[in-house]
Amino acid sequence: MIVIVSNQTPEQRIQEIMKYIEANGLQPHVAKGVDRTVIGIVGSVQPKHAEHLRQMHGVENVVKISKSYKLASRDFHPEDTIIEIGDVRIGGGELVVMGGPCAVESPEQIDEIAKLVKAAGGQILRGGAFKPRTGPYSFQGVGVEGLVMMQEAGRKHGLLTITEVMTPEYVDVCAEYADILQVGTRNMQNFDLLRKLGECNRPVLLKRGFSATYDEWLNAAEYILAGGNPNVMLCERGIRTFESYTRNTLDLAAIPVMKGLTHLPIISDPSHGTGRRELVEPMAKASVAAGADGLIIEMHTDPDNSMTGDGVQSLFPDQFAGLLQALEQLAPLVGSTFNTAKQPLSFYQNTVVGQ
Amino acid sequence: MIVIVSNQTPEQRIQEIMKYIEANGLQPHVAKGVDRTVIGIVGSVQPKHAEHLRQMHGVENVVKISKSYKLASRDFHPEDTIIEIGDVRIGGGELVVMGGPCAVESPEQIDEIAKLVKAAGGQILRGGAFKPRTGPYSFQGVGVEGLVMMQEAGRKHGLLTITEVMTPEYVDVCAEYADILQVGTRNMQNFDLLRKLGECNRPVLLKRGFSATYDEWLNAAEYILAGGNPNVMLCERGIRTFESYTRNTLDLAAIPVMKGLTHLPIISDPSHGTGRRELVEPMAKASVAAGADGLIIEMHTDPDNSMTGDGVQSLFPDQFAGLLQALEQLAPLVGSTFNTAKQPLSFYQNTVVGQ
Amino acid sequence: MIVIVSNQTPEQRIQEIMKYIEANGLQPHVAKGVDRTVIGIVGSVQPKHAEHLRQMHGVENVVKISKSYKLASRDFHPEDTIIEIGDVRIGGGELVVMGGPCAVESPEQIDEIAKLVKAAGGQILRGGAFKPRTGPYSFQGVGVEGLVMMQEAGRKHGLLTITEVMTPEYVDVCAEYADILQVGTRNMQNFDLLRKLGECNRPVLLKRGFSATYDEWLNAAEYILAGGNPNVMLCERGIRTFESYTRNTLDLAAIPVMKGLTHLPIISDPSHGTGRRELVEPMAKASVAAGADGLIIEMHTDPDNSMTGDGVQSLFPDQFAGLLQALEQLAPLVGSTFNTAKQPLSFYQNTVVGQ
Amino acid sequence: MIVIVSNQTPEQRIQEIMKYIEANGLQPHVAKGVDRTVIGIVGSVQPKHAEHLRQMHGVENVVKISKSYKLASRDFHPEDTIIEIGDVRIGGGELVVMGGPCAVESPEQIDEIAKLVKAAGGQILRGGAFKPRTGPYSFQGVGVEGLVMMQEAGRKHGLLTITEVMTPEYVDVCAEYADILQVGTRNMQNFDLLRKLGECNRPVLLKRGFSATYDEWLNAAEYILAGGNPNVMLCERGIRTFESYTRNTLDLAAIPVMKGLTHLPIISDPSHGTGRRELVEPMAKASVAAGADGLIIEMHTDPDNSMTGDGVQSLFPDQFAGLLQALEQLAPLVGSTFNTAKQPLSFYQNTVVGQ
Repeated sequence: MIVIVSNQTPEQRIQEIMKYIEANGLQPHVAKGVDRTVIGIVGSVQPKHAEHLRQMHGVENVVKISKSYKLASRDFHPEDTIIEIGDVRIGGGELVVMGGPCAVESPEQIDEIAKLVKAAGGQILRGGAFKPRTGPYSFQGVGVEGLVMMQEAGRKHGLLTITEVMTPEYVDVCAEYADILQVGTRNMQNFDLLRKLGECNRPVLLKRGFSATYDEWLNAAEYILAGGNPNVMLCERGIRTFESYTRNTLDLAAIPVMKGLTHLPIISDPSHGTGRRELVEPMAKASVAAGADGLIIEMHTDPDNSMTGDGVQSLFPDQFAGLLQALEQLAPLVGSTFNTAKQPLSFYQNTVVGQ
Repeated sequence: MIVIVSNQTPEQRIQEIMKYIEANGLQPHVAKGVDRTVIGIVGSVQPKHAEHLRQMHGVENVVKISKSYKLASRDFHPEDTIIEIGDVRIGGGELVVMGGPCAVESPEQIDEIAKLVKAAGGQILRGGAFKPRTGPYSFQGVGVEGLVMMQEAGRKHGLLTITEVMTPEYVDVCAEYADILQVGTRNMQNFDLLRKLGECNRPVLLKRGFSATYDEWLNAAEYILAGGNPNVMLCERGIRTFESYTRNTLDLAAIPVMKGLTHLPIISDPSHGTGRRELVEPMAKASVAAGADGLIIEMHTDPDNSMTGDGVQSLFPDQFAGLLQALEQLAPLVGSTFNTAKQPLSFYQNTVVGQ
Repeated sequence: MIVIVSNQTPEQRIQEIMKYIEANGLQPHVAKGVDRTVIGIVGSVQPKHAEHLRQMHGVENVVKISKSYKLASRDFHPEDTIIEIGDVRIGGGELVVMGGPCAVESPEQIDEIAKLVKAAGGQILRGGAFKPRTGPYSFQGVGVEGLVMMQEAGRKHGLLTITEVMTPEYVDVCAEYADILQVGTRNMQNFDLLRKLGECNRPVLLKRGFSATYDEWLNAAEYILAGGNPNVMLCERGIRTFESYTRNTLDLAAIPVMKGLTHLPIISDPSHGTGRRELVEPMAKASVAAGADGLIIEMHTDPDNSMTGDGVQSLFPDQFAGLLQALEQLAPLVGSTFNTAKQPLSFYQNTVVGQ
Repeated sequence: MIVIVSNQTPEQRIQEIMKYIEANGLQPHVAKGVDRTVIGIVGSVQPKHAEHLRQMHGVENVVKISKSYKLASRDFHPEDTIIEIGDVRIGGGELVVMGGPCAVESPEQIDEIAKLVKAAGGQILRGGAFKPRTGPYSFQGVGVEGLVMMQEAGRKHGLLTITEVMTPEYVDVCAEYADILQVGTRNMQNFDLLRKLGECNRPVLLKRGFSATYDEWLNAAEYILAGGNPNVMLCERGIRTFESYTRNTLDLAAIPVMKGLTHLPIISDPSHGTGRRELVEPMAKASVAAGADGLIIEMHTDPDNSMTGDGVQSLFPDQFAGLLQALEQLAPLVGSTFNTAKQPLSFYQNTVVGQ
């Protein structure tokens, strides 16, 4: 950590700053420049030290050198995390595709879509039972019943399932029915939810908040990891920018950046990341080319009549299947694999993660 | 609502779109242009209609003419909402100042600050008991005890109190001890929390999400209003932009914009909105000049040692008092009033809102 | 075009608006809703009509249905534009790679790099002679001499050349020495420069302004096209967002979006788009997977000592060569081709574009 | 300046970095931490040093402590710059109001508006002769004739004049007819223009680029100052954010921030900063409350028919006059003055700046 102090700061004040540093078991190294003094701090620097120094009168700036997250950092965990669920391995070199509707609407709908996801080569069924909607007068999801429908469809067709959990009190019930729990973009900094997920035995897919920096995103992952749950994957789903033609700006550089900063798997969501069906295929391919460990993609048998209005970004089933075939060709070129002709083996058992 | 269809869309498809419109009791008005057809829709248009039409294949765009929020809209409620709590009226022409520390730290700290807020002319004491912190290793607040400390300090010095509630299950306990409940910027779209607050009998201060549009912010307010709680005030606290010198970019135009779009009071937070002590005073004045109904300002007796690291944006007590004196001069020039020399009357009773 | 008028607008005012519409040879179609009236306008709508109506008192909003650009629009020019220069075809299905240093520094430097670009399979040599630098005390380029050095290196090694032109008076000299003229991100809306380039017989690579919308970008291209120069290619190079870890946020969705909106070729710049060497390779691959017609990439033999300080985003020659070999594999999977083993034929003649 | 090096960097490499530092006459101070080494650099650090070190392999980050601009910095020029033109002093404690149309349209129009600006108490007439328009099919201004018209109107009514100059070759003619030259937001980094203005004897109003950081803005000012022209004023006119309800987001914190970082006067443009007439008055007042030295405001006698389509953000003459009366009350509260009843003295002489 580096503390920058103006040379107009009284000497006594600088002494107080030095005293604080030393009182916390840290060593200051001072470099006095023409108009500013730089204090390099060595030792076991903690976030609270930075916070405290930043607010001390006379301190002009505090520059963090070490990261504020540890468990999520590749510095402390150089090898890739691989999340194993049944015979699906996320982050282990095989591309993972999660497909399904924005919302579970009926048993028939989710069953039909699950069949198509499986047939196309996907491994995981996505679907929302509770929907975070920006206005109170929109469809809010079918609730716990949707979880049951999705679990049944997944088991029948040999797919794992992922669903979004929106509030701490629903973690247990979602964990009962789904294999992976998703934290939505609006909840990336819902810290009570993150803490609760840290105590949960299900892997978590953590979407990036739509105006979250990389640092904030990894600190949010740190909450879950610090709670004791090592199975966290990140999901880039687009950030908010001035461009409004697309629903969001999918920041694909986040993929290689995360590969460098963290050991956690990184998934891309080209559906929410663009909000437009015709952009999903090219951006899915680009995600894989950039090094993504997996994709989460909306697919619907009748997008015209999806209940959430998200049909506009859902692929038709044949588009979804065509995309997965293209990925089968593409994956080997970036050191990954993907096989659409996997045996429809009954690989699904309600396995406990990590076993 | 307007639906735009490309002239390359097959006629049959256009008929299906028309059929959907009419089946929902709406009247379409068609204007066929050179390359696009515009369908103006008249009738009781609902958000779900827009969502459905947007996703119909062949529809190029849907333009909403009416707003997706009703209760929050000035169109449906032309006169200003005034929130009365004891003898404080928010939105009624007298400027309201909420002052206090980022976090309640001890009974002595909050008592001392309460005394100074009151002496300076403030009406409301702010302070956090639970702190939303971006990293898991930072100070997280003192919890329910902090609520008790703050209530005692408020009652003793004749100040109302406001505190942040972060999760639905804490609404009841926060409502028991505080007079106003604050929704933080990270929770603006925590819909379960908003719904719970809709059933609560305390006024709510709803901070703008740091990348929320005006429309999303008003839809978040609509959640609370739709739940039955009419006492919502909005709080501009800065948005996230590319400029990183300030912690956020305080969007003061939001103040007159909100005065036009809604009848709810609007408060400004120049502390979080800038993140720098030296900017709080000019931006507080600018907020009032722009028409704000009130301010929420961080003040600390020992900002160097605040426990949250937010001291850097906290005013010293004498700066706070000086600012309030300046506001006393400024308020009348923009049709408001503010009086620092109010009698320290025992106006605080644990009044139920609206009575 | 659609004009939206509040129903609180006096009838007389609506009549004046109608009169304006009809006086300009357009037909209004009125749909009167509960609180707003929608006027759909059919006919030869021009930008000036939208501008005028938007400012008429009582008009709440004007929604453009047709685009404000014509020559750049795929609606008016459905087939792809292919720019032919010598035996290089940009936009014609073969991937084009432009490589070279940020700035031309010396004859030896540019000659050595040209040799390496050619050997790796690149077709075009990039290099700046005049550098747009944000501060006045930075290296500003070697000027016209640099153009001469680059042309010589290009001719010697059989490469076309591209260089940035920063001001209208330099268009002629740059056009004399370089095969393609580049408009930098800070000049995307330098309209005098755009107009001058419209009269020039060299193809133009138009970089997206770092906070330009798609619409503004295409309108900038329209300036050049309207001036009589049909050979414009677009270049996505990252936009400015709140994320500061990367120099910019490379918006790869721009690639398929542009493929839909316009017939012009689209190039990606992963060097400026990320500002970090380690991100260039994955983002170059992702660009191609997303459908880019070409890439412009910084490469330097001694990035540690580049004169512009941009070495941090420059590939080493072996990284550059390795990337191009990877692209050779990747291109066919997205319907393109790229061949690193091209004959080093003397294809360069100072050909006039289009001949 | 601080250089941060990973401890995984080979020792030899660190020695090369040290050698570079010392070879440039600078002193390195090393602090070796657990995972990173921090090198504090003392001496006459120049921008090129930072640029060079940043790109050296093994360097993780370079943190600038000193600013990259000097002439614009308050550190090197503590007292306020006051720009004197005739008897108008900008930055000297009296509020300066620049009013007028977006574009000069005819002698009658500009004469009528000049009369109204003067009568309301404004000191400077604004008006564009050349208009930077985002599309090529829009009205582009009346050209040099407009300069003549505006100068005549200004002289007749006793107003200084300000007009935008868009390209280096027009600097001379604009300087001949106008008293202040404006650099528009799209040209903030048109470095050739900035250099040309540095050699010009007219004061310059430098608008902030719509995605420019404070640092870039001050570096742009540095270009002009470094060229020999000390009379630069800055103009905040809104930045580009995700919020599209307003044309831009007027960043009023820029006003006190600039007061701290620089000695140059700061002007606010609430017209372009909001793009909506009804927001101009509150944001003008807020600007003054935040400490602005002046305002530049669009006013038009017939905004419905303005030729640029900017009428929607132009005040009507009576609104303009009313605003200035309000500012007369407001200015003294923030340590400034403004007097609408100034004698209509013939203070205009075509004075050379600084005499």
